[in-house]
Amino acid sequence: MDLSFIKRLEEVVGRGGVLYREVDLLVYESDGTLALRGRADAVVFPRSVEEMAKVVELAYSHGVPIVGRGSGTSLSGGAVAAKGGIVISTARMNKIIEVDLANEVAVVQAGVINDWINAYLSRLGYQYPVDLGYQYMADPGSQRVSTIGGNIAHNSGGVKCFKYGVTVNQLRGLTVVIPPGEVRRIGGKEFEQPGYDLIGLVAGSEGTLALVAEAVVRITPLYEATLTILASFKDLYTAGRAVSAVIASGAMPVAMELMDKLAVEAVESGPYAAGLPRDAEAVLLIQVEGSPPGAAAEADKVAKVLREAGAAQVEIVDDPNKAARLWAARKQAFGAMGFVGPNYVVEDGTIPRKRLAEALAIARSAAAKRGLRVANVFHAGDGNLHPLILYDERKPGEREKAIEAGEEILEACVELGGTITGEHGVGYMKKRLLAKMYGEAEIGIMKAIKASFDPKGLLNPGKIFP
Amino acid sequence: MDLSFIKRLEEVVGRGGVLYREVDLLVYESDGTLALRGRADAVVFPRSVEEMAKVVELAYSHGVPIVGRGSGTSLSGGAVAAKGGIVISTARMNKIIEVDLANEVAVVQAGVINDWINAYLSRLGYQYPVDLGYQYMADPGSQRVSTIGGNIAHNSGGVKCFKYGVTVNQLRGLTVVIPPGEVRRIGGKEFEQPGYDLIGLVAGSEGTLALVAEAVVRITPLYEATLTILASFKDLYTAGRAVSAVIASGAMPVAMELMDKLAVEAVESGPYAAGLPRDAEAVLLIQVEGSPPGAAAEADKVAKVLREAGAAQVEIVDDPNKAARLWAARKQAFGAMGFVGPNYVVEDGTIPRKRLAEALAIARSAAAKRGLRVANVFHAGDGNLHPLILYDERKPGEREKAIEAGEEILEACVELGGTITGEHGVGYMKKRLLAKMYGEAEIGIMKAIKASFDPKGLLNPGKIFP
Repeated sequence: MDLSFIKRLEEVVGRGGVLYREVDLLVYESDGTLALRGRADAVVFPRSVEEMAKVVELAYSHGVPIVGRGSGTSLSGGAVAAKGGIVISTARMNKIIEVDLANEVAVVQAGVINDWINAYLSRLGYQYPVDLGYQYMADPGSQRVSTIGGNIAHNSGGVKCFKYGVTVNQLRGLTVVIPPGEVRRIGGKEFEQPGYDLIGLVAGSEGTLALVAEAVVRITPLYEATLTILASFKDLYTAGRAVSAVIASGAMPVAMELMDKLAVEAVESGPYAAGLPRDAEAVLLIQVEGSPPGAAAEADKVAKVLREAGAAQVEIVDDPNKAARLWAARKQAFGAMGFVGPNYVVEDGTIPRKRLAEALAIARSAAAKRGLRVANVFHAGDGNLHPLILYDERKPGEREKAIEAGEEILEACVELGGTITGEHGVGYMKKRLLAKMYGEAEIGIMKAIKASFDPKGLLNPGKIFP
Repeated sequence: MDLSFIKRLEEVVGRGGVLYREVDLLVYESDGTLALRGRADAVVFPRSVEEMAKVVELAYSHGVPIVGRGSGTSLSGGAVAAKGGIVISTARMNKIIEVDLANEVAVVQAGVINDWINAYLSRLGYQYPVDLGYQYMADPGSQRVSTIGGNIAHNSGGVKCFKYGVTVNQLRGLTVVIPPGEVRRIGGKEFEQPGYDLIGLVAGSEGTLALVAEAVVRITPLYEATLTILASFKDLYTAGRAVSAVIASGAMPVAMELMDKLAVEAVESGPYAAGLPRDAEAVLLIQVEGSPPGAAAEADKVAKVLREAGAAQVEIVDDPNKAARLWAARKQAFGAMGFVGPNYVVEDGTIPRKRLAEALAIARSAAAKRGLRVANVFHAGDGNLHPLILYDERKPGEREKAIEAGEEILEACVELGGTITGEHGVGYMKKRLLAKMYGEAEIGIMKAIKASFDPKGLLNPGKIFP
């Protein structure tokens, strides 16, 4: 990329707003994904939607690929410049613009960290119910977490989506930049939009149709009381059946998270140890909410169902400090993997909930037959599985084996009636698998949609499509 | 349409499955919309998705327009054959195929009546939370209500969508027929799909992209207890502020329905009279749910907020029979209009909730300046306004005035930050208004999407696009 182009970018976003030296670009060569690297020619940091539009206009008119990037925590290579060009980072578009309680919406810029919204809202008695706090990456100290823009691009779920739905369910309006560099405001503060659902289409499109600049998101009141139920199981099948039993009982948990033995061992070996039972084959953490009497009745109901379903131990945690430690332990599970193995590949598939035990057995065998171990954390409520396949990068060939095992697990998810991604995208890594889910007709329709937004094919090229 | 074509249709769907005589077609000339008529050449009743696909294939290959039809309760002319061709009715595809409690989904055919699903599920302690029972049309005795296919085509809301979301939020999977006659199964029983959100795109597309044959919908447990709160107000502004106050209080009502004085008068004049206060300027019906103690605490909280916000009277209705009568009265409001005026036009707009009082004032003035009256029923939770503009068809010009008043109200909704349709579609009637909401770029993208599904433009032609 010649310097005159860099200069023109700097004219738009200011002198500190463009990185283009090799040493600076190195950081942006990869994202949360291990297996893909790609060098951008420049990383650009617009401060507003108008600047973002001008940057897109400049790049688009010069045929330069454009890759959006939030915190780079996708697990599919979504934020990697696979074909060069510029990366547009939303790091300087990180403001909560408005919180409108009467309409129960917040207006936020794309670069706002998911957790910040809840930190702000909780003081008002509100929440943004897509709780992605668990997406702390390999280094828990750095607290790098996902942005709302990245959540929208991947239609992320999180621990509460069983009750509250995924990201797209919270979106009321979007301000996007579409080629060749136009700002569009779609929707607003109300529930529904006429015509085709362009908001739904942009959500989950992984930066291939538009760049998200701002979003109007639904917020909901926090309940007065939350209670945590901790249950342990002697085998995975019983745990799987217990999850189904809780759901079939008519209970309404907010979150249901399952960790298997190796995941518990990792967490309990680190600084976030919370007293999870290390001898259990599976541990289930459930949260319920309501008015104080309502939450208590719900917790009793869930505990009873778990006992009847064969849980080895069931505890209703009334100490809020202990409950907080348990959830922190769960949320640090990815970061704690270093205590049980030097490296890991984390996958992201979904399955119909009642196939849980089968899916976990397949994950273990896919790793075991390659001489590897797998730890599993699982959003049991919505059937979103995150197997963490452990390997040692110093041993030649192990990384490739881990990736292979991950693909085998995802293919099994599809066989079981699930999908190849819950919330981290198709990106680059799972392109090949998309054809396992859709026929040529659907992929043809998707490509035509892509072309109608992005006729030159410059938005996040090389992603999603096989 | 020549008889040899009719014969080929009959070969697919059987002899009783095609209507083509003039007297039979008359019934299908209009739908819930008043102002539009259109004669189809034939109405076809497939019994399965395979038959539906064959009918589409036959029509598509012959260049015959195809209009899907459920119960014909759209208010925008969506089910009217504006350009001739065939109507495909889902009346014979009316089975609940499966209820899967472990995955909390139901699999239903497109022609299933919305209410049937809940009638079936309630015995299992479950619900399909898009409650469109209120869509009883002009003749309450006939209980014609909307189908799930129609709900999907219009992404309908209903009384509970404040808490549970609209139709698209409940969809896990769709079986659709796309041109030139292919069956596609998109999604399944799990939460999320990779790639572009084709389910979201088909939902709300009003039969212009695909015909829905079957759906996998999310079902949720019924709470143990529900309570109704009835409040009356001396003026609309206080009522509007009370709605905002309830929401800002952090309460979680399931449904919040507002009726103005004329709507109450209509209902109380008919067989569904429930003792609503006829002297109030506005009446608010709220439902809360939870465990018995949780629901009671919630009802107390809501009642307190309503009193503080200036309600003239507030009553927590514990008698379930009275509560049932109150909700039946609300749901029969459309049908009861005959008691206050011979004819009406019903509109369907949305506004940000806090603009409620303004919107109602505008609706009244739009009608009054044309010498007409308007009754308002309002899904206050999601800001979905249904003004019923009364007129007398025997008086020349009144119908046109009523339609004009309706358009003025919808334009005001857009001015207030809302939209031209909440749940009854753009269809034919609101095509012109779509350009008030979107620029050429968005409409261009929508048209390109349309062309990628339906290159010949035969699916519900003449609808949505200006």
